[in-house]
Amino acid sequence: MAQAFDPDSEVFRCHEGGKLRVTSTMALTDRDALSLAYTPGVAEVCNAIAGDESLAETYTWRSRLVAVVSDGTAVLGLGDIGPAAALPVMEGKAALFEQFAGLNSVPIVLSTTDTEEIIETVIRIAPSFGGINLEDISAPRCFEIEARLREKLSIPVFHDDQHGTAIVVLAALRNAAAVTGRSLADLRVVVSGAGAAGVACAKILIAAGIGDIAVADSRGILDPNRGDLTAIKKEIAELTNRAGLAGPIEGALIGADVFLGVSAGALGEDAVAAMADQSIIFALANPTPEVHPDIALRHAAVYATGRSDYANQINNVLAFPGIFAGAFDAGASGITEGMKLAAADAIGSVVADDLSPTYIVPTPFDPRVAPAVRAAVAAQARLDGVARR
Amino acid sequence: MAQAFDPDSEVFRCHEGGKLRVTSTMALTDRDALSLAYTPGVAEVCNAIAGDESLAETYTWRSRLVAVVSDGTAVLGLGDIGPAAALPVMEGKAALFEQFAGLNSVPIVLSTTDTEEIIETVIRIAPSFGGINLEDISAPRCFEIEARLREKLSIPVFHDDQHGTAIVVLAALRNAAAVTGRSLADLRVVVSGAGAAGVACAKILIAAGIGDIAVADSRGILDPNRGDLTAIKKEIAELTNRAGLAGPIEGALIGADVFLGVSAGALGEDAVAAMADQSIIFALANPTPEVHPDIALRHAAVYATGRSDYANQINNVLAFPGIFAGAFDAGASGITEGMKLAAADAIGSVVADDLSPTYIVPTPFDPRVAPAVRAAVAAQARLDGVARR
Repeated sequence: MAQAFDPDSEVFRCHEGGKLRVTSTMALTDRDALSLAYTPGVAEVCNAIAGDESLAETYTWRSRLVAVVSDGTAVLGLGDIGPAAALPVMEGKAALFEQFAGLNSVPIVLSTTDTEEIIETVIRIAPSFGGINLEDISAPRCFEIEARLREKLSIPVFHDDQHGTAIVVLAALRNAAAVTGRSLADLRVVVSGAGAAGVACAKILIAAGIGDIAVADSRGILDPNRGDLTAIKKEIAELTNRAGLAGPIEGALIGADVFLGVSAGALGEDAVAAMADQSIIFALANPTPEVHPDIALRHAAVYATGRSDYANQINNVLAFPGIFAGAFDAGASGITEGMKLAAADAIGSVVADDLSPTYIVPTPFDPRVAPAVRAAVAAQARLDGVARR
Repeated sequence: MAQAFDPDSEVFRCHEGGKLRVTSTMALTDRDALSLAYTPGVAEVCNAIAGDESLAETYTWRSRLVAVVSDGTAVLGLGDIGPAAALPVMEGKAALFEQFAGLNSVPIVLSTTDTEEIIETVIRIAPSFGGINLEDISAPRCFEIEARLREKLSIPVFHDDQHGTAIVVLAALRNAAAVTGRSLADLRVVVSGAGAAGVACAKILIAAGIGDIAVADSRGILDPNRGDLTAIKKEIAELTNRAGLAGPIEGALIGADVFLGVSAGALGEDAVAAMADQSIIFALANPTPEVHPDIALRHAAVYATGRSDYANQINNVLAFPGIFAGAFDAGASGITEGMKLAAADAIGSVVADDLSPTYIVPTPFDPRVAPAVRAAVAAQARLDGVARR
């Protein structure tokens, strides 16, 4: 992470000139092609769309085009590095949309970090796009920005740091429960981290029927009596913590079935040892998981991380390409909670009979995943009444 | 233009799914590629840019990326058709940037037509791009939007409907003067139309040393005594009309050397016949030129239009791809007046010894044009002190 800038290294060489290209579907090398794709022919297409805007879905590229929007405030583990420095990540994300779902995607990095300005800017550029993927925008602004954009726009808006993570966590947790002979309703879960991912994980786990859940931030367990909670943390505190716990996270972990780490806070071996038998540990901080693999090996039945060099990698790429592709297939006006749950089901189902403690989620390169997610999300959009086709 | 929507026609078939694609420069099909182009490798690139923003020019795609920005208010001859209906034109423009200069380009169509909102929106998304091409934004808002963005941003900002047209007109007019044995300083020019193109043409012709010029809008010749002039028309009135003319355009045409039509107002044969001998007629309205070719044939020495089916097509595509490519090559912080004049020189020079009354500008597909413009513009950027490389 702290490596020096070395223009001859493989990483820098592969980033030279950036990672994306825009190409035309038609060669404009003669007068006939120009007359069709540009003036005068294009005027017919413009007129048709002016008369019936729904024709833009067929005759422009926007219906399969995702804007990857970031203000550069919460980039990877690097924090607030600004829009220019965030751009390589957004280009990578756009490349993943193409690679895994054949979608077009354009990075839009912003010179503002103001909530209202971000919202109005995205609304103003929205006619250019078929969907908005919010990325690496810090909490708590990310919650309001997503909520307001979902309300204002009739295209899919999806904050991947929240929901991409939450969907893959749910898929993995359902399989982890199955492989250890439990159901989701029986599990007591402790979430470490109450940022974008922690909040979204807590919400999707509640929606999926998890038995009990406690969420902790760096100051301890969220309980409604704490005076230092933001609006969203207060909401989470009221939805969780059935046992009325307070204080350090270690208290909640005694006898807990699941530790879900979505912060960078390391967890000691004593706390892990105090969990229930057959414990499940998802330690998703990158590059250093909250629970060291050696410790997990000694105590847990299932261990998952965000890293590609261990088994059970929880990677958002399992979710977002298929989710947007499915939403676009259905012409969905938004991403419903049902569509997120359907995506999690689809990801988990790919594992099927190969389920084992070291194979609770497919690998990021499993070619079955995106098509399965896409089909499930499109079908659910139609069931939920948000589909336009 | 008024053809019915026919999904089986060639025009509509070639627009299906839109005309652009975003592709990745790297296949992300295995863990190693993902580790380089995305996490964890990309973090090194982000960190380097966070430390030195100028590295974004090398390690992101933005330094060769043009935003084609429109609010859809003045699209082709169709007028205010809105952002969705404008999108096919902007996609075509982006395709032309690729085809003629190998640049990446993304259409950004806006859901606002408010001057201030357009300015602030473009400023906020500007970190995503290397240059801003404003397109099909109606006058007089286009003048203020361009001027303010040029002032605020340190990347090229270029309103093509103004300057692209003006540059090609100047190139063509210089050659038309030469082929009829005159110099620019000897010419008396009448411009019909005081919108984006008319204003920019008047300004570039003055900068190029045209002898005398009168500009007319639909109400007649612009003179400073008229009470109905917008700020920009008043400015043009003060810079032109040396003879102090007033009234209908026909009065100005008596004895004039050049008619430049950048409006849709048709001109009768009497007015054309009243012009000087060896007159030059540029009738650029599309699809119906202001002066019919039969009339021009009877009276003019040189006739040019915007159409591809006559000789001497005045087409912006001769200018904008090379202008942005040259500005990017030089890392220019903006497009100077000098760079525009250099582009016009370069376009005109390609004709060289083949100059004739029916060949005053290269054809849009002449492969020599964009490289010539590009080199001239980059060189001028360095002379003008706006180059960063």
